[in-house]
Amino acid sequence: MKIILASKSPRRRVLLEQIGMKFEVAPAQGEEETRFVRPWEAVMDLAAQKAREAATGRDGLEETVLVIGADTVVALGDEILGKPKDEEDAYRMLSLLQGTSHKVYTGVSLLLLEGEFLKSHIFYRETEVVMHPMSEEERRWYIGTGEPFDKAGGYGIQGRCAVFIQEIRGDYNNVVGLPVAGIYQELKKLGIEMDDLCE
Amino acid sequence: MKIILASKSPRRRVLLEQIGMKFEVAPAQGEEETRFVRPWEAVMDLAAQKAREAATGRDGLEETVLVIGADTVVALGDEILGKPKDEEDAYRMLSLLQGTSHKVYTGVSLLLLEGEFLKSHIFYRETEVVMHPMSEEERRWYIGTGEPFDKAGGYGIQGRCAVFIQEIRGDYNNVVGLPVAGIYQELKKLGIEMDDLCE
Repeated sequence: MKIILASKSPRRRVLLEQIGMKFEVAPAQGEEETRFVRPWEAVMDLAAQKAREAATGRDGLEETVLVIGADTVVALGDEILGKPKDEEDAYRMLSLLQGTSHKVYTGVSLLLLEGEFLKSHIFYRETEVVMHPMSEEERRWYIGTGEPFDKAGGYGIQGRCAVFIQEIRGDYNNVVGLPVAGIYQELKKLGIEMDDLCE
Repeated sequence: MKIILASKSPRRRVLLEQIGMKFEVAPAQGEEETRFVRPWEAVMDLAAQKAREAATGRDGLEETVLVIGADTVVALGDEILGKPKDEEDAYRMLSLLQGTSHKVYTGVSLLLLEGEFLKSHIFYRETEVVMHPMSEEERRWYIGTGEPFDKAGGYGIQGRCAVFIQEIRGDYNNVVGLPVAGIYQELKKLGIEMDDLCE
């Protein structure tokens, strides 16, 4: 089975490597847009768009192909936080998130192409994250590390921001950007086993 | 300030590197023993022993020295699970943990040596971990990866076992073996700032 990760995120790649999966990377080229406003609907829609783009032209092959698409956002109440536009936007996001709890949503789209047959499955995971208070100085220090800019919500839980994370409730890897436990458990329902996924 | 990690765990080393800390490694040589049976007391006692051993002979120097000792155990009800002795012990532990929730305790001892002055602080963090059910085959597969043998409870949350972790409640890095958020927050109380710790 050929596995394709439809994402350019290095953190998602590291997570699939961590569980020993053999895969190729084929990120979607387009800028996905969604009409959904609720975060769990938006991330599932965007994940599905990414997976579909990467799957195009790969049907009807002899080999079985599994495409994994994913999208992650941070939500604080009604506000969805994507990637910060600049330093001030990062400061604004960190100021909103520090000292309180927020939710991280990752949507995942699994497309399984077996010759002319297509199985697909889409789901999301929600994780609550509680952050320690961050002083103005700490927020500026963290922005100075350069970490916030390519990350939803302006922080990386797997980076230096770890010292400001008080606790989480849910799947940690979902916050990093890919709920590998959820993916494995859902793939089992599609009849796929560990030996199919790993070297 | 010179920082010394009194642990031979490669996972603790990776966590300190992740937050950008500059440090040396000086693992304790002895086999620590504790008379405490409650897991949070046992890990604090063992962490303190490790830190004390690494601090020996480092007092009275001109340079400020910070020694970090840590110990981690997995607890299921009254039973403390250390590192598995062999394959069957690993199977026994995974069989106890799969499909249910357990707790992970890491004790941390911080020793700050400033000339003739010593500040010390000791604390622990507790994280609840919920595991997906694992079939016999999955347990055997996981043992075959070789991961269980140097890890408390017979699993590594940051390794291939990630696919079997349903959720956690608390600090993820505490399960990996070092609650870096707790350490940073406690060091702030001792008057230490990020610039003292990082390059």
